[in-house]
Amino acid sequence: MSLPSYLAWPWGPQRGRISIDKSNSDESNPPEFETFDVMRPRGPSDEETKAAGLSVLSVDMRVTENKKDHNTDKYKNSNLIVRRNKEFTIILKLDRTFNEEQDDVQMEFLIGSSPDENRGTYITVSIGKEKHDGTWKSRVVEIQGNDVTVGIKPDATCIVGRFRTFVAVVTDLGKHRTQRNPDTDFYVLFNPWDPADQVYMEKEEDRKEYVMNDVGSIYNGEFSNITTRSWNYGQFEEGVLDACLLVMDAGKVPLLYRGNSTEVVRQGSALMNAQDDDGVLVGNWSGDYSAGTAPTAWTGSPEILLKYASEGCVPVCFAQCWVFAGTLNTFMRCLGIPARVITNYCSAHDNTGNLKTDIVLDEDGRVDRSRTRDSVWNYHCWNEVYMKRLDLPEKYSGWQVVDCTPQETSDGLYRCGPTSVNAIKEGELSYPFDAKFVFAELNSDVIYHKSNKYGKTKIIYVDTAYVGKLLVTKKKESSEHEDITATYKYPEGSLKEREVMQMAERRGVPSREYLPLTEAGVDIELQADTVKMGENFKLTMNIKNQTSQSCTLSATITGCVVYYTGVTSTTFKLESKSVTVEASKAESVTIDIKGMEYIPHLVEQSNLLFVAYGNIEENNTSLTTMKVVTLRPPELAIKMIGTPRVGKELMVSVEFMNPYNFILKKVQLRLDGPSLIPTKLKEYSQILPGASVKYKVSMVPRTAGKVVLMACLDCPLLRQVTNQLEIEVVKEE
Amino acid sequence: MSLPSYLAWPWGPQRGRISIDKSNSDESNPPEFETFDVMRPRGPSDEETKAAGLSVLSVDMRVTENKKDHNTDKYKNSNLIVRRNKEFTIILKLDRTFNEEQDDVQMEFLIGSSPDENRGTYITVSIGKEKHDGTWKSRVVEIQGNDVTVGIKPDATCIVGRFRTFVAVVTDLGKHRTQRNPDTDFYVLFNPWDPADQVYMEKEEDRKEYVMNDVGSIYNGEFSNITTRSWNYGQFEEGVLDACLLVMDAGKVPLLYRGNSTEVVRQGSALMNAQDDDGVLVGNWSGDYSAGTAPTAWTGSPEILLKYASEGCVPVCFAQCWVFAGTLNTFMRCLGIPARVITNYCSAHDNTGNLKTDIVLDEDGRVDRSRTRDSVWNYHCWNEVYMKRLDLPEKYSGWQVVDCTPQETSDGLYRCGPTSVNAIKEGELSYPFDAKFVFAELNSDVIYHKSNKYGKTKIIYVDTAYVGKLLVTKKKESSEHEDITATYKYPEGSLKEREVMQMAERRGVPSREYLPLTEAGVDIELQADTVKMGENFKLTMNIKNQTSQSCTLSATITGCVVYYTGVTSTTFKLESKSVTVEASKAESVTIDIKGMEYIPHLVEQSNLLFVAYGNIEENNTSLTTMKVVTLRPPELAIKMIGTPRVGKELMVSVEFMNPYNFILKKVQLRLDGPSLIPTKLKEYSQILPGASVKYKVSMVPRTAGKVVLMACLDCPLLRQVTNQLEIEVVKEE
Repeated sequence: MSLPSYLAWPWGPQRGRISIDKSNSDESNPPEFETFDVMRPRGPSDEETKAAGLSVLSVDMRVTENKKDHNTDKYKNSNLIVRRNKEFTIILKLDRTFNEEQDDVQMEFLIGSSPDENRGTYITVSIGKEKHDGTWKSRVVEIQGNDVTVGIKPDATCIVGRFRTFVAVVTDLGKHRTQRNPDTDFYVLFNPWDPADQVYMEKEEDRKEYVMNDVGSIYNGEFSNITTRSWNYGQFEEGVLDACLLVMDAGKVPLLYRGNSTEVVRQGSALMNAQDDDGVLVGNWSGDYSAGTAPTAWTGSPEILLKYASEGCVPVCFAQCWVFAGTLNTFMRCLGIPARVITNYCSAHDNTGNLKTDIVLDEDGRVDRSRTRDSVWNYHCWNEVYMKRLDLPEKYSGWQVVDCTPQETSDGLYRCGPTSVNAIKEGELSYPFDAKFVFAELNSDVIYHKSNKYGKTKIIYVDTAYVGKLLVTKKKESSEHEDITATYKYPEGSLKEREVMQMAERRGVPSREYLPLTEAGVDIELQADTVKMGENFKLTMNIKNQTSQSCTLSATITGCVVYYTGVTSTTFKLESKSVTVEASKAESVTIDIKGMEYIPHLVEQSNLLFVAYGNIEENNTSLTTMKVVTLRPPELAIKMIGTPRVGKELMVSVEFMNPYNFILKKVQLRLDGPSLIPTKLKEYSQILPGASVKYKVSMVPRTAGKVVLMACLDCPLLRQVTNQLEIEVVKEE
Repeated sequence: MSLPSYLAWPWGPQRGRISIDKSNSDESNPPEFETFDVMRPRGPSDEETKAAGLSVLSVDMRVTENKKDHNTDKYKNSNLIVRRNKEFTIILKLDRTFNEEQDDVQMEFLIGSSPDENRGTYITVSIGKEKHDGTWKSRVVEIQGNDVTVGIKPDATCIVGRFRTFVAVVTDLGKHRTQRNPDTDFYVLFNPWDPADQVYMEKEEDRKEYVMNDVGSIYNGEFSNITTRSWNYGQFEEGVLDACLLVMDAGKVPLLYRGNSTEVVRQGSALMNAQDDDGVLVGNWSGDYSAGTAPTAWTGSPEILLKYASEGCVPVCFAQCWVFAGTLNTFMRCLGIPARVITNYCSAHDNTGNLKTDIVLDEDGRVDRSRTRDSVWNYHCWNEVYMKRLDLPEKYSGWQVVDCTPQETSDGLYRCGPTSVNAIKEGELSYPFDAKFVFAELNSDVIYHKSNKYGKTKIIYVDTAYVGKLLVTKKKESSEHEDITATYKYPEGSLKEREVMQMAERRGVPSREYLPLTEAGVDIELQADTVKMGENFKLTMNIKNQTSQSCTLSATITGCVVYYTGVTSTTFKLESKSVTVEASKAESVTIDIKGMEYIPHLVEQSNLLFVAYGNIEENNTSLTTMKVVTLRPPELAIKMIGTPRVGKELMVSVEFMNPYNFILKKVQLRLDGPSLIPTKLKEYSQILPGASVKYKVSMVPRTAGKVVLMACLDCPLLRQVTNQLEIEVVKEE
């Protein structure tokens, strides 16, 4: 016997293309009456309805009790929220006592606009005589008077999203359903607490941090001078869960895929950026953010996600990597997928995919910008999500890299990952998704070319240690950072590291062999301490001559302001020095840097970059070195008056003084703190030189325990002025 | 020492996003004069030019000789076409004899608008005193008077596309370049003849078929009745190569990726269909093709690709799977990637990715269309390409599946593959790209559900053998088909097959276990011979009763017209029969089908589908079976007058008679034959019942040997009337 293929779904004009349900917000619901005898008109007569002898007066979703059991009581949402593969109970209030031998009651849970059993968008469970459950299980827990308490257990792989509830009394004549009632809608989330769930996480302390923690620290600055900024993930804030589902609807993620965390993560990484699919955030590294909010001005994700949702899915302006990563982190934790934000210091942006970052200097040691396309970011933020990779061999489960900052297109769309951290460490780059790109961000060599006057280049230096220097994430139950470099890489120069490189080459990474380079026997190094923004300071260049004869070094030192992307805005200093150093001696020269030289050119994250290029006259060899100087912004003081008590008013003041001799214009001051206050924005048209501003806010703590208050001051001339205050809220006595 | 990251390329406002060169047609070229001393004004004086003492009068690309050596002489293109990793020679005509010790001549080959050494879009080789080649190699082959013959060898991984040539004489004063001259442009293609190339193919007979053959056979019909239609791939026809490059430009395929056949294939599969990227062809399965050309009316790819190119990359209307596959095949062979067209009979279209094709019947055995979403195509065509998969373990190299018919979205775009045929056979579905989807097309189970009056469904039959019944492709040096099922699947029911299924489950394919089904002990079967279109015929239903008591079968037989996609257009017959069959006896009933019943309803590929659903009253079990009846269209006769000789005129006539008692309107008659005639289209507003048309064409064979002449007649009431004539063209004596 063979298949009646005439039974196919009638497609539209584009029959080759199947129409798939891609929205959680669209609905189609079953009729209130459904008669089984197709001959008779719809809607049974009164006698029949009586004959049914049973009707459902109301359905109690037991929101509060269930939410406690399902670790979802922190969500500020009036509907029920449950997790997969864990039973929740609802109470059916009937007009008489339920009889398990005679009555037949069916519960139907629907999602989307074309509910379909085979696709998990139409789920039925039943109690009473006609017992036939599908993937979800049900049982009668208790019968008390006219109340029946029913236990329902969604399966461990079901779709994550908002379901609609219907209860139908079934008789020989037909089905009699409850009407559509949004109060009985409920959300199903991923379940890190359940071993059967793809995102299961064994340790409670891990779940507490990576799923339940709604504030975090994101690290930036520079690897030798790590700076911290707090971020409000706010995954439990009112409206955030709906916003996350809306993001998937806007991105047309088929409902069918929404039970698979690998798919949800991959789609999510594409949907956080506005490139090629009106996603949540618009990336902007131009320095001009007048058309929106500066990336440095945000304090958390809720403001961004709620803006996106309330404005009809219009992309929000503007973001850079930590904003992308912070928002994606909220999206993941909100849906129940364990996630954390990672910072990779000295992150290569290898767009030729050859694991080489090529830097080309011209004949005189100046950059040849027309031939230098790659770059190394001072730091780059991405996310890790924790899950079982059902599509890959078991050892590649666990933490997965996902990166939603638009860098390269991954397979046509701007997204990256999920890709197994274990696979990256082993150089096993065949498996999806985008392993090669992530591997390059961590393992590229920096190749330093110099061209002769014929335009022919030759390699003058190769640095295999610079890229992927350090990877950090927030420690559990602490705001300190944790060094996780070892989860991504074997020690520099170790045998294992060489093996990994060979493995990577067997997986299509072009091999990297370089001709040996002539050693100058002379080292140069730049030195400076971190400086308070605006101060004058000294930059020192040390020259060590290890050869047996004296040498003469002619050096050019370039000073410029640099973005965290490794892109410079302005060169403010250019100085040449010539020094003679005796055999096996050391010399040093100092250069004075005035605040007034760099202040006017500062961009959002105030790093100064000094590059020295030198030439040894005696043997005509080239030297080069670099030093990033991070500038400490002025302080933003947060003061609290009185002890914070639940339900009691609390006064907080934020103070700032403009230490510069120029006016700060269009100043934004943001205050933020989950379960303390919604994001507050205060704007100052200007702050005069030497002038101070003091912003007082009253707030009423909602819950006891540790909470974080964050403040951020931002204006075109001064970025990245942030501070945070940890507050221990005590119970009302 | 560390990296001067200020050396980064200055990005646009979207600094996070790198701008990559994505067009072969855009240009930017170097200046004619380039002086090395930056102080002096551009353009050397007369003395200086003389001082150079050498100038290039002209460059001879030796088009004819090189094309012969590179297996590219069949391309109707006046420019040079070479293959990777094989030397070609050009002659530089100078104003004096070249001196290898003193002169320095640089050759520059550019592609795209931002030529860059690190990206392989700016290539230089040089001869003479300053010898420094990059990835491409060069040598002086011969110096004869003022002519220098130079050998140039592109590297085995270089970008495939159209390069521009410049020759520069280098002196201490600067470079003196030849001017931009399109005649010296040349194309570099993949090289299946070279072991170092990713697409290397060992056997000459294979390359002859899968790279060089410009006609082919595509198989359709039904697995028990395979029909053939010839296809004009025409990869060598004038303008086709440029059209293929234009397709990649229109699809914004980065030049950087165009040396990697895996990338080119993946992008190509997305670009052949118009979905989500104005690709080449618009899919249409609606039956209404009035807005363009019916999929059944095409005879080959050149007409399609040239239309796309000449109309500014506006998608061409309309295509179905064999048109998509035929055009993609041309694209591949034209660029030098070995490719062939495959037909998979009974190809599952599994939307849920669970390897189940779910068919749901209602209480009375009628299809419940609202609950049946999947379908099985009578046949589906895709392509195979041959290459080394550098990104995967070695054993997954070889033939790769690629499918450009828009079915499901693969990772966001409508495309599928390349995915290793070996991996599919072994159930190793983790590796890119889209292995699961292809595996499902071949290995889905057909699950047959029936619902009771409560709307509850139960499985009544599972067919594990129906899907992926047979895979075929054209035999080498023959128009017969070759059964390649064994390259995709182990024998049905073998131990190996079970192991593969288990492997697939370990790779995330949901496991498939079914409850045992009760056997009816009664078999039904439908029988009919293939019929000439329009004829009356008899359909027989045989009932075999293997039980020990008599049974009564009440059956419904549905007859409908079906698309090759498994979708029906109209039901033209519905008949009920009741038969009583004695214990262990057989009975049969016949049903008369009149031509007039189905003729008015026929769709493009004339298959009739009969489905019988029966119920045994005694034990209330269900039976179902199906039979596809393929209708033979009327004949299209091709006659040739005289012996075909190279360069001599040849007369060919195509004849057709309308055998029906209705008028055929808007009739298109196409004639096609590479190296015989360009595609010819003749239109008839109508052909009356019984009337004949005769179309005479004169042609002049260009080359000796076997050529194929194809004819195709198409109109809304009658599709798929095709014929082909093999002609042996003899040399002029």
